Amino acid sequence: MTQKSENTLKVAHQAFEHFTHGLATGEWQAFLDMLTDDFTFWFPMGKFHGLNEGKERAKEFFQYVSEAFSPGITLTSLDRVTSNETTVVFEFRDEGLLFGQPYKNRVAVSFDVRGDKICSYREYFGSDSKSY
Amino acid sequence: MTQKSENTLKVAHQAFEHFTHGLATGEWQAFLDMLTDDFTFWFPMGKFHGLNEGKERAKEFFQYVSEAFSPGITLTSLDRVTSNETTVVFEFRDEGLLFGQPYKNRVAVSFDVRGDKICSYREYFGSDSKSY
Repeated sequence: MTQKSENTLKVAHQAFEHFTHGLATGEWQAFLDMLTDDFTFWFPMGKFHGLNEGKERAKEFFQYVSEAFSPGITLTSLDRVTSNETTVVFEFRDEGLLFGQPYKNRVAVSFDVRGDKICSYREYFGSDSKSY
Repeated sequence: MTQKSENTLKVAHQAFEHFTHGLATGEWQAFLDMLTDDFTFWFPMGKFHGLNEGKERAKEFFQYVSEAFSPGITLTSLDRVTSNETTVVFEFRDEGLLFGQPYKNRVAVSFDVRGDKICSYREYFGSDSKSY
């Protein structure tokens, strides 16, 4: 593994830790601090469906996520981590309550790393959100 | 990159080529030939939602896919490929007709490789299937 690949993996692991902390607690600042100013993300559904641009949009999104999933989503399994020199994909499962109703999903998030930050990510869903 | 990682990537690329050929043409034999006897796959929705086990089930699934998406789904963009020693994730976009209606999706498929075969994969969707 090249030094660049190792750095990419290290940065993405740190970001993923902040990401899952945000999902669990609603505290997103540490994750937001790791995003580049020109950060973009793709989300599969709802009002944030498609391409979203900028840190302000990201902040709005994560606030919305934590309201929808109050009191928090728990990571139940980290299934796979794959990477190359610039991108790291985390496949995981999570569960919680979505507007008070039981929620379970299999998820893949793909983080693009630039330096020590995340410059974009893509999210994908692997279930109907009711069961794995 | 280790020799094992290189082999994993090579096998997965070959399988992915057969996979996209199957999506485009309905000809799945070359992909099915690359699956282990104990092959399993996870699918996000519909009658194949969740864990599916065995090559017969896979055959049934791909036949169903090609009926639903007649005359075939076209890969429009291969966005990212990430890997480790045993797993390769392909992020791509495709489009076609689903039961005659326009269909577009962002997709991640994660292939687990054993020797020169695929022993399991997980599929994830990144859009509402109507637009990217």
